[in-house]
Amino acid sequence: MADPTQWVFWTPNLFVSIGGKTSWLAAVAAAKADEPLVVAGVLLSLVVIYLASKIGGEICVRLNLPPVLGDLVGGVVVGVSILKLLVFYAPGDAEISSTMINLLQSTAGLEPAAARPTFAAISEVISILSELGVIVLLFEIGLESELNELIKYGPPAMIVAVVGVIMPFTAGTLGLQNLFHVPVIPAIFAGAALTATSIGITAKVLAEIGQLGAKEGQIIIGAAVLDDILGIIVLAVVANLVKTGNVEVTNIAYLIVSAGVFLVGGIFLGRFLSPYYVALVKNLKTRGSVLISALTIAFILSYIGAAIQLEAILGAFAAGLILGETELQQELKAQVVPVADMFVPIFFVVVGAKTNLGVLNPAVPSNREGLMMAMFLITVAILGKVVAGFTVLTPGINRLAIGIGMIPRGEVGLVFAAVGSTTGALSESLEAAIIMMVILTTFLAPPLLRVVFQARSGEPLRSPVVESAKE
Amino acid sequence: MADPTQWVFWTPNLFVSIGGKTSWLAAVAAAKADEPLVVAGVLLSLVVIYLASKIGGEICVRLNLPPVLGDLVGGVVVGVSILKLLVFYAPGDAEISSTMINLLQSTAGLEPAAARPTFAAISEVISILSELGVIVLLFEIGLESELNELIKYGPPAMIVAVVGVIMPFTAGTLGLQNLFHVPVIPAIFAGAALTATSIGITAKVLAEIGQLGAKEGQIIIGAAVLDDILGIIVLAVVANLVKTGNVEVTNIAYLIVSAGVFLVGGIFLGRFLSPYYVALVKNLKTRGSVLISALTIAFILSYIGAAIQLEAILGAFAAGLILGETELQQELKAQVVPVADMFVPIFFVVVGAKTNLGVLNPAVPSNREGLMMAMFLITVAILGKVVAGFTVLTPGINRLAIGIGMIPRGEVGLVFAAVGSTTGALSESLEAAIIMMVILTTFLAPPLLRVVFQARSGEPLRSPVVESAKE
Repeated sequence: MADPTQWVFWTPNLFVSIGGKTSWLAAVAAAKADEPLVVAGVLLSLVVIYLASKIGGEICVRLNLPPVLGDLVGGVVVGVSILKLLVFYAPGDAEISSTMINLLQSTAGLEPAAARPTFAAISEVISILSELGVIVLLFEIGLESELNELIKYGPPAMIVAVVGVIMPFTAGTLGLQNLFHVPVIPAIFAGAALTATSIGITAKVLAEIGQLGAKEGQIIIGAAVLDDILGIIVLAVVANLVKTGNVEVTNIAYLIVSAGVFLVGGIFLGRFLSPYYVALVKNLKTRGSVLISALTIAFILSYIGAAIQLEAILGAFAAGLILGETELQQELKAQVVPVADMFVPIFFVVVGAKTNLGVLNPAVPSNREGLMMAMFLITVAILGKVVAGFTVLTPGINRLAIGIGMIPRGEVGLVFAAVGSTTGALSESLEAAIIMMVILTTFLAPPLLRVVFQARSGEPLRSPVVESAKE
Repeated sequence: MADPTQWVFWTPNLFVSIGGKTSWLAAVAAAKADEPLVVAGVLLSLVVIYLASKIGGEICVRLNLPPVLGDLVGGVVVGVSILKLLVFYAPGDAEISSTMINLLQSTAGLEPAAARPTFAAISEVISILSELGVIVLLFEIGLESELNELIKYGPPAMIVAVVGVIMPFTAGTLGLQNLFHVPVIPAIFAGAALTATSIGITAKVLAEIGQLGAKEGQIIIGAAVLDDILGIIVLAVVANLVKTGNVEVTNIAYLIVSAGVFLVGGIFLGRFLSPYYVALVKNLKTRGSVLISALTIAFILSYIGAAIQLEAILGAFAAGLILGETELQQELKAQVVPVADMFVPIFFVVVGAKTNLGVLNPAVPSNREGLMMAMFLITVAILGKVVAGFTVLTPGINRLAIGIGMIPRGEVGLVFAAVGSTTGALSESLEAAIIMMVILTTFLAPPLLRVVFQARSGEPLRSPVVESAKE
């Protein structure tokens, strides 16, 4: 946590303060953000985020790609890589390279002396809004997870999920350590990011080609639900390893157990308590009781998740799973959708904006290793899930299609990358390589899925219904 | 902006830094917030806010009082006055009196060295969320304002509104200056806070007693719509006076004109452009297009409002008025409601939490002047609106009922108090006096309205339908 670069920030104040009262006051003023302009800057940042998300999303939908890719690529465009409209304060930077701060100075009268602290405050607020975005995202994913989906094709789905977590995790971690000499902690983190499966993207494509009800579709959905649960446990464990630096087997075992107990225990306790909760909410007479009581539970569990050194999103996901099984589910989902529409793009766009794709520019020789890592991660990401698909022994099943269906990392992969970035464990090039892996797997899965399902049935597929992207 | 008290905060770092590398690192670490615990603290603050809002609101609904009073009183209970769960960082404080920070230290492992910057970051984020709350509130009020309501009883409504703004503003400002020797700027601000009328509270009570369709009800609603528009112009002008300190007549005239032009010009430009906007939104295929495009417009206008040194909420209100006239109004309102349910209580509870009612404790002799001011403001608040009601010349009208209907200041009065607090223009006792005025007018209006309507009709009123508070 000790960050010597922050010293650069405070040094001017220190020296100016020696000069006497006037310059001392100037120094103090320099350290204070311009509050109304923090609000203005946050508003402008949100406008940039929403424009990037909508323009990117609409282009992707028209190209038959998942809208989340649009958020991410939109974020890359407005972020540090290109336009620098949405950049984040780093205390060590000698100059502020934020187009936003320049805009505040030229249009809203921000004083140069207040620029740094105002920039720092805006960055802090947008970062926290983005964290709230991922908490709302995981709450919504939990809310929409149908634990019942697991039952029908439980055994094959379970095998696909477990192999699909172990294979890419092991191959990714060991490969990065041995081929690229990445230290153990970032290697584990990148390996963990390879385990995720984005159920939303595959489910949407399967619905479009009319295969959601097929055996393969059911196994994929079941495995993806379980994958979310396994993935979030892996993430919580790995994030704790990063925080504590303790990679002993006993500690890892302890963490896996505590994350599992938190999630499973939460669900069981939730089942026991939820009738009382439903009865309470039905007696509330003020506006927004369903939403606010649900958010309160989600935030309490998120707080506990963070306080026990696991992850806040583990709590949000558990809250979603619990409340998704109550009779309030439908009403709650309808009210969470606008909140998620507002918060979740902040997370995706911020992830894109923080990613410096410049570190993967092939024209710079020192970037080649990062590019090689990206290619390695993409290969493992695809092969690991395809192998998992072939573990299904049920006869008459398109096993390749199952593997392909598990490929897109989508929003869940981004959550891993973002958590890794927050802990500071990942190097810039490894982080960019993970983001590239997420983008490419998400980008490739929809067309590949169409091809493998077409190859089996021999019939032309229903033309993809673009409208179905509008929920 | 120069705040010498902030010096206290940095002094320890300065001295420790002289001691050598180790203590220098410690000092730098001390200046850095614990990021995951900032998220945890924000989550915990939101839990406190939602619990305060729901418990307070439910009690008020059962006592037949407006739920907004519950938010406010709930905020007072959890805030600086009583529990200190939700308190805000002040750089000058020698000790941190936040129960929340103590909780983070004992349950989530917050290091004492990181306590101050973490507290500062949490306070910053919650303050900005509260600002977003008031922006969403004014956007929703704008969206629900039916400009058509003004037409039917236009002339009497206009007179009631104008007199109801001028009377309390003049009496309040001059009274504070002459009776209590309050300086001109805070006196103007407190006078401005007296102008507001909360349309929501009166409309709800009128609906409950079946008088919303009566002539009196229509005049009250028309006047309250206009009152919102006049009030927000007054607020923007007064807030600018506070920022610039320029109270010359030419500047005031210029500000009134520019705020009026901003609002009226925005509405006209909006009428012209909104068909293109509706056509664009109908072509969007991604999730949440209606909500996000509307928020983008609201945030852009809010930014412009802030950038031209008026107020962000003026822009949000204009955006609400504009979009409320498009054919998307119904769909948009349905989606804004959950967002408002989530954000608006943050604003109300924070206003309550920041109010130190201790300064009105009558047992302390030095508080007596603040109490006298509160009583004076409440008297002017009630009499000013009652007088405005008697300006209606239409025969057969219950003129007292109209005046009483204009009394509750509700959320609009709180917006004034909060803006005044942010600018730093108000003394602590004047701010608490304004909050007391808002609480009491909001508290008194519903029972008084029932009495005056009953007095006229001579019939017993319909029993109040508590359920109608649930929207």
